[in-house]
Parts: sequence; C-alpha cells; structure tokens
Amino acid sequence: MNIKGIQKQLSDFADERDWDQFHNPKNLAMALSVEASELVEIFQWLTPSQAESIMESSEHEHVKEEMADIMIYLIRMADKLNVDLEESVTDKIVKNSKKHPKTD
Amino acid sequence: MNIKGIQKQLSDFADERDWDQFHNPKNLAMALSVEASELVEIFQWLTPSQAESIMESSEHEHVKEEMADIMIYLIRMADKLNVDLEESVTDKIVKNSKKHPKTD
Amino acid sequence: MNIKGIQKQLSDFADERDWDQFHNPKNLAMALSVEASELVEIFQWLTPSQAESIMESSEHEHVKEEMADIMIYLIRMADKLNVDLEESVTDKIVKNSKKHPKTD
Amino acid sequence: MNIKGIQKQLSDFADERDWDQFHNPKNLAMALSVEASELVEIFQWLTPSQAESIMESSEHEHVKEEMADIMIYLIRMADKLNVDLEESVTDKIVKNSKKHPKTD
Repeated sequence: MNIKGIQKQLSDFADERDWDQFHNPKNLAMALSVEASELVEIFQWLTPSQAESIMESSEHEHVKEEMADIMIYLIRMADKLNVDLEESVTDKIVKNSKKHPKTD
Repeated sequence: MNIKGIQKQLSDFADERDWDQFHNPKNLAMALSVEASELVEIFQWLTPSQAESIMESSEHEHVKEEMADIMIYLIRMADKLNVDLEESVTDKIVKNSKKHPKTD
Repeated sequence: MNIKGIQKQLSDFADERDWDQFHNPKNLAMALSVEASELVEIFQWLTPSQAESIMESSEHEHVKEEMADIMIYLIRMADKLNVDLEESVTDKIVKNSKKHPKTD
Repeated sequence: MNIKGIQKQLSDFADERDWDQFHNPKNLAMALSVEASELVEIFQWLTPSQAESIMESSEHEHVKEEMADIMIYLIRMADKLNVDLEESVTDKIVKNSKKHPKTD
C-alpha cells in the first residue's frame, strides 16, 4: 500500500475543504473510534457464523467502506504525528511475539 | 506498506498460538474498536494544544503502539474477509470527494 | 430513577419483539459501545467551548437521545446479569476515593 | 436510583480534586466511550454462551466495575448538561415503541 501517496491525497483533500483546523490528533482519534464502532454495529446482533459470511451478504460494500474509513483516519493521523505506520506495525509484531511465545 | 507480507505474518502468528478460532470478524471488529478506544484514552483529558504536541511527550511510544494495534487488527480482518484495503481506501476517497465537493 | 420499572418495560419490549435471543451480554456490550460512539460523534469536531454550549445548539435533543440509548442498554444489561447498578456505582465511588485521595 | 444524590457526590469529588476543568462534555463523552470499550474488552473473545455465564466467572467484579464507570460518566455528563436522565429514557422508550411496533 502506498501510504505516502494516500497521505498526500488526504492532506490535499483536507486543505481544499479547510478541514485542517479540525484535524488535531485528539479529534482524529475520536473520529477513528467512531468509524470503528460503525464497523462493530454491522456485527452487533449477528451470530459468529452469520459474521463469518458477512461478505456474502448485502452488507459487503458497507463493511469495506467502514474499514476504509478507519484506514483513512489512521493514515491521516500518522501523517499529522509523523508516525511510520509500517515500522510501528513491524515493531509491535516483534513485541507481541515476545509477550505471547509460541505454544508448542 | 507490504500488506500481503504482514497478513502472512499475522496469520502464522495466530496459527502458531491456536488463535484462529477467536478471529471471526465479529470478534476482530470488537478488538479493533477496543484498540481505537485505547488510543482515544491517551487524549481524553488533553486540551487540543496538548494533543498537538503528544509526540514530544512521554506518551509518544504509547501512541505508536496503539496505532499499530489498530492497523494489525484491520489488516487481520482484511485477510479474513478478503478485502483489498488499498482498493477500498482509494474507492472511499473518490466517494468522499463526490460527497464533499471542494469549497472554492 | 426507577430502575426496576424501566427494566420491566425493556424486558417486555424485547419479549414482544422476539429480541431476547439477541440480548446476550456480549451483544449488549457492543450495542452500548456503539451508542457511546454516537454520543462522541456529536462532539468530535467541536472545540471545548462549542462542546460546553451544546445544549443551546440544534443538537440538544440528539444529545439527550444518545444518552438515553446508553442508559437503556446499561439498564438492560444490568437486568440480564443481575447487577444492582446503584450499589455498583456506590461501591465504585468508594473505590475511586481511595485510589484518588483528596488534594488539600 | 438516587441520581441527584450521586450527582452531588460526583460533583464534590471532582471539585475536591480540581478535576472540573477536565469535565467538559466532549471529554466526558470520550471517557464514557473508553469505559464502554473496557466492558466490550471483557467479552471480545468469548462465545455467546461463555458471555451468558460471565457472572459465574472470575470476571464478575470486573463487569460490575466497568458498568459502574459507564454509569458514573453518564450521570456526571447529565449533571453538566442539565439532562434529566429518567425523563430522557422514558421519552426514548416511547419513541422506540413507535419506530418498532409490536410483532403479533
């Protein structure tokens, strides 16, 4: 995924709409969590097996859009805070593997 | 960002710990929203200007880790649901630009 | 607040619509968190001072409804789990006052 | 539940710790949503049937405390915004019964 390219697009998008004033990290974290809840809402009354087959339901586009919204706010926040998302993910996977050693 | 490579790592990680049974999309959406709230928690009592300078505070590693956790669950979910995250983000940006035309 | 009376109303409401099957505590916790995010959404782009005067804005009914939705799911969950909300709140205030002693 | 009495306790508690400065409705909504996610976290990897018997598990006190935290922030917010929670809940139940008529 071309994170830098998407960051440029999102930054231009915000500038052109004079939205940069709203995009402080506190507000972006809130917006991200609201989008995460919109994803949760799709699944809230489903059984685990209904959830498994969500992409064969009429909700499949809705799921993709909510996932995209989360990604968009995460990439925007990473841009504003100068966080390298790929590096952070790689570091976290290493940390997780120390915290949760393999079960043999 | 090498999404495919990270998906493979996360999938192996889950397999090796017998976690795949827990990773249905309903549970992953919940876990993602919990991580989003852990990011929100860092900012909840801060003023907007304190939030702006969070990366100069002692919380900077914490912020990166919570952002990584969100990304990890999002990538894991995309893998389980066969969603192409980059394509979904690109589609959503197009849709957003139609919904919110530029202000001139 | 007459919690017992409201619990009876909500229980009847769910029974009459055959919703009891969906109201397990996992789903109710998800629904409650989704409603909490709908409350957050009202405030996400506001400055602290705009937030302070929300009840003088056109959003005042919306705020009340989202707060009611949170309360409704919390009361419903307390009913399903046999939790005495008032006792739990009183216990938690005592615990909080030990954790955070008064500053003199 | 004696909402007025609890509001007075929470207001005194905040005053004595000089926390009133942090308790604007935006921050309280965030804090409430963070507590709701802490409740969700307890259930995120459980099956529906494990969730049903949560109060027979070692998590039963944890569940009560997270429910209390949500209630506390909701009551605090109602105090700051002059919302009558009981009236709002009653109004919302009426509205819900119009939106979702009984199935016969």
